[in-house]
Amino acid sequence: MLKIPFTKKKINNNNEFNDLGFGTQVAQQRSINSNGSFNVKKKGLSYFRLDDLYTNLITMKWSYFIILVLAFYTFINIVFAGIYLTIGIEHLKGVTGTTSRDHFFDAFFFSAQTISTVGYGHISPEGFYTSLVAALESLMGVIVFAVITGLLYGRFSAPKAKILYSDNAIISPYKDGKALMFRIANIRSNQLIEVEVEVIIGVNINENDKIVRRFYSLELERKKVSFFPLSWTIVHPITEASPIVNFNNTDMADAELEIMILIKAFDDTYSQIVHSRKSYFYDEILWDKKFISIIKQDENGKSILELNNINLMESSPL
Amino acid sequence: MLKIPFTKKKINNNNEFNDLGFGTQVAQQRSINSNGSFNVKKKGLSYFRLDDLYTNLITMKWSYFIILVLAFYTFINIVFAGIYLTIGIEHLKGVTGTTSRDHFFDAFFFSAQTISTVGYGHISPEGFYTSLVAALESLMGVIVFAVITGLLYGRFSAPKAKILYSDNAIISPYKDGKALMFRIANIRSNQLIEVEVEVIIGVNINENDKIVRRFYSLELERKKVSFFPLSWTIVHPITEASPIVNFNNTDMADAELEIMILIKAFDDTYSQIVHSRKSYFYDEILWDKKFISIIKQDENGKSILELNNINLMESSPL
Amino acid sequence: MLKIPFTKKKINNNNEFNDLGFGTQVAQQRSINSNGSFNVKKKGLSYFRLDDLYTNLITMKWSYFIILVLAFYTFINIVFAGIYLTIGIEHLKGVTGTTSRDHFFDAFFFSAQTISTVGYGHISPEGFYTSLVAALESLMGVIVFAVITGLLYGRFSAPKAKILYSDNAIISPYKDGKALMFRIANIRSNQLIEVEVEVIIGVNINENDKIVRRFYSLELERKKVSFFPLSWTIVHPITEASPIVNFNNTDMADAELEIMILIKAFDDTYSQIVHSRKSYFYDEILWDKKFISIIKQDENGKSILELNNINLMESSPL
Amino acid sequence: MLKIPFTKKKINNNNEFNDLGFGTQVAQQRSINSNGSFNVKKKGLSYFRLDDLYTNLITMKWSYFIILVLAFYTFINIVFAGIYLTIGIEHLKGVTGTTSRDHFFDAFFFSAQTISTVGYGHISPEGFYTSLVAALESLMGVIVFAVITGLLYGRFSAPKAKILYSDNAIISPYKDGKALMFRIANIRSNQLIEVEVEVIIGVNINENDKIVRRFYSLELERKKVSFFPLSWTIVHPITEASPIVNFNNTDMADAELEIMILIKAFDDTYSQIVHSRKSYFYDEILWDKKFISIIKQDENGKSILELNNINLMESSPL
Repeated sequence: MLKIPFTKKKINNNNEFNDLGFGTQVAQQRSINSNGSFNVKKKGLSYFRLDDLYTNLITMKWSYFIILVLAFYTFINIVFAGIYLTIGIEHLKGVTGTTSRDHFFDAFFFSAQTISTVGYGHISPEGFYTSLVAALESLMGVIVFAVITGLLYGRFSAPKAKILYSDNAIISPYKDGKALMFRIANIRSNQLIEVEVEVIIGVNINENDKIVRRFYSLELERKKVSFFPLSWTIVHPITEASPIVNFNNTDMADAELEIMILIKAFDDTYSQIVHSRKSYFYDEILWDKKFISIIKQDENGKSILELNNINLMESSPL
Repeated sequence: MLKIPFTKKKINNNNEFNDLGFGTQVAQQRSINSNGSFNVKKKGLSYFRLDDLYTNLITMKWSYFIILVLAFYTFINIVFAGIYLTIGIEHLKGVTGTTSRDHFFDAFFFSAQTISTVGYGHISPEGFYTSLVAALESLMGVIVFAVITGLLYGRFSAPKAKILYSDNAIISPYKDGKALMFRIANIRSNQLIEVEVEVIIGVNINENDKIVRRFYSLELERKKVSFFPLSWTIVHPITEASPIVNFNNTDMADAELEIMILIKAFDDTYSQIVHSRKSYFYDEILWDKKFISIIKQDENGKSILELNNINLMESSPL
Repeated sequence: MLKIPFTKKKINNNNEFNDLGFGTQVAQQRSINSNGSFNVKKKGLSYFRLDDLYTNLITMKWSYFIILVLAFYTFINIVFAGIYLTIGIEHLKGVTGTTSRDHFFDAFFFSAQTISTVGYGHISPEGFYTSLVAALESLMGVIVFAVITGLLYGRFSAPKAKILYSDNAIISPYKDGKALMFRIANIRSNQLIEVEVEVIIGVNINENDKIVRRFYSLELERKKVSFFPLSWTIVHPITEASPIVNFNNTDMADAELEIMILIKAFDDTYSQIVHSRKSYFYDEILWDKKFISIIKQDENGKSILELNNINLMESSPL
Repeated sequence: MLKIPFTKKKINNNNEFNDLGFGTQVAQQRSINSNGSFNVKKKGLSYFRLDDLYTNLITMKWSYFIILVLAFYTFINIVFAGIYLTIGIEHLKGVTGTTSRDHFFDAFFFSAQTISTVGYGHISPEGFYTSLVAALESLMGVIVFAVITGLLYGRFSAPKAKILYSDNAIISPYKDGKALMFRIANIRSNQLIEVEVEVIIGVNINENDKIVRRFYSLELERKKVSFFPLSWTIVHPITEASPIVNFNNTDMADAELEIMILIKAFDDTYSQIVHSRKSYFYDEILWDKKFISIIKQDENGKSILELNNINLMESSPL
């Protein structure tokens, strides 16, 4: 039986956090994955949607993207090679091969030279149909590579806040009591300014003998910083007003406590608002720990931010 | 005679919704089409405006866009073929055709090879004028395909909130009374966050024996969600304070009631604010219905959103 | 002597409008031109600034832009033709001309074929230096046309609110008194939503026997509309609280009254906030006029907005 | 011993400025460099990060960018020349050179003609492997130049507020007392509107016998202007409420006073919010000075902004 410290009345006051789009149904998994994506599967999306295709091509890994481009290039050249062979290899002037394998590769490489618009011309189209197909292929080449230009620009320029989070949230001594903390830093070279953070917890609670999932906002010592050149330790002081004031380690597991974090910032390099999400599940919360500062000064007094030490902490019993 | 439940005083209080840009004139058609576009025709726009041309090229269907590109490519090559023929086919070195039909196609395909910059070179320009036209055509080719690159990027990257709405708004039992509801889900793979919704109704009312169109905002159970990974049922409780508290099905038809919906969200993938509009006309409102949940859990407890069931409802007499 | 109806105290209350970035110095010209640009000249800007170059290339007229591209293409080809001739025309294999004029054009067109990457190959570079220059020129071609691609995309996609304003502001009868009005409509096919308007006047006033320029905000009947599918007449009721309550036609001329308008809207097609500025000088204000509605309905009851009639008004003595 | 005029209570009231992301640790250097960048070094960033690579390529100087492109072009052609030579120079049809140096350059220029897709064709690939490498190289060329297109567009279009600041902040006579002032102007041809400014000071103060760094916001005579066509002198009146009311020149040095400025504006040309940062260290503050107006009028009464005179001031003892 959970010792959830809310009165019915308190829940009403915090009404706006009762449903954040997750519903009240108790799931057996976390709502937000550790990397910030939502742990939800959509069914009924058609498999090939152009909008989503673009989004996927923009957000997929570079290695996949390159393999896809190579595969597409190979595939399209095979298709056009087939068309040129069907019309007749004799319409490709300058072809020297004699076997049908040679002919295929001649047509294949002619296609590659056409679609990339390199067009050396040692092989050239002759006759109406071959010329027409070549004309369409070079148009297609220009369009395909226009698409690739757009995709590459989209991939590079899509604003992304790359916030580095400490691997764990910790419960630390804080003033006369304790606090829930985690630490963040900006690992990109862009400047982030006006950084705001919102922390929400999801817990299973017993409401009228029914287990439901409820969501509460956590009060923070500081919600916003104007600059973010260094690291920032976000602190929720566990005072009497805190929804988790009576929780110990076991209570958190029982309630399947999930700490969900939204960070909103202005990316000064790209002049766009960026967001970052993160979630700590109950088993990623460490007790009796304290962060060690990762800001040092070099011999000239210049501040150094040691990003590799973001998880550096020491034991600090409450 | 309509039983519009507003007092004069109430209207004044809701003053800011009396005119939303639609005026007070009673139209015989809905203000916003079902797909969210405005049901208004503009007269006096010049037929060819470059700004609107771009907007149209960005927003037209893919099939039309591709046909347009092919038509343009064909047209421009015909024009340049004409120019080359006018200057003289003998200035195209390497031409082998003998009939004037052959000559036209030689010039046509040379033009295609020039504008796409593939330039095989088995046909090449000779003499000042042909070289000059070819130089201008290749410049034009580069520019035209720069435009296509821009258009394709514009088409792909234009942020669009693709909100899936239930086909009908419904009047459902809600707590001790009833409520007007409709359901939405995000059908794209982009994440939408900070989703806000505004619902406004337009009704014809009898004001000093003159029928005028008035607009009122509807109070919602929840106006905003922080996350939107699942579906969201938007609920307007029909309490005594609701402008439509005394309406039955016939009253809605008499008043030509239109429910207009504005959704505003932050697209987390493209870091841009997106909007979606929707309208339900009085004949798209169903009574005595209730939505059935479209969120399921798979064997591992992961939430599944079944988009195909967005309209799933059951009978539920008030 | 002006009958400016402000007390010292009132000015203090409206303090935030005393200086809008124009200062208090009395100018002999309007602050904002009729088309919305600021009537200010900057001295000391370096003549060639890359940032401004881009802005200028994006915002210049299409006809100038095209002339500039053609001029640049001609110029760069003349420069490279000169380089090829300097190295020696004999290094351009395939050249057939015999006079130096022929040689120049051979080099010129070879350059054009290289920079546009069309590269027919009937003329080709031979020898180290010519090959090197051609390699650099083709690189330059690719880069130059990348720039053109960016410029064209920038030109097309730059969000622009094209608000159509009535040519004149008018003083109309309004309720029991009079009001200052002007009318706007959206002439683009993009949808504008959440349109906000701010109206500020600039007047010369006598302050401690010194003529200074002061700026005041005008109260509007409606500051914002959610939708903007039709036209919108913006109304400043000239009540006792209005700064211009005691002004007649002559007073406006004496005070060199300027009405400055800022419109802010969300462009729903491009998902960006757009602004529009406009100014009416005292001699663009008509008295005793009334706008005639430009919204009609076609035979099916669909609303028609007649943009050409934006200035349609009739006499209406106060 | 510093005469910091804050009471403990006052600091609490200004609580939100006690930590702006810089921490309370006393550094021996300024927090923000004179050009607005943060004076912080990050350690632990991996040396090659694609995100940062893009950001760096977008923000690096033009001269470096051009050198980088040339170096990359040379390098990639050397690599491909090596590959073609390894496969065998005899597979490049049309090669005329006889020495291995000639062969290298033939392969090098063939590579350049392939990657730029100019493809004259006087040298053309023969045989499977050479054709394959050429096909891949032309694909790579198209992609590389797509990247360059994106980079150039990114470089040009990245919104940048280019605010010109006076080189020094000054302490001037102001009304009956004195004020801290600095002057700004917009040196770009874009229009900035809705310009907001925030001024924060960082000082070392003695708190419980420990020197810590504290940050305070300064009250401004005006925080925002709607238009910014001219120059703007930002004024902090040094009243009793000011944190620096008791500071003289020496106190500022002792406290290592740093004035940090954030400017936020809407760029009307690109429809984006832009920021600018600036910092004045204590040794950049001049006492007993007064700015001279840089706004003149030409013979027609048009306002002229003389940007070169931004630092123009005269002696003005308090």
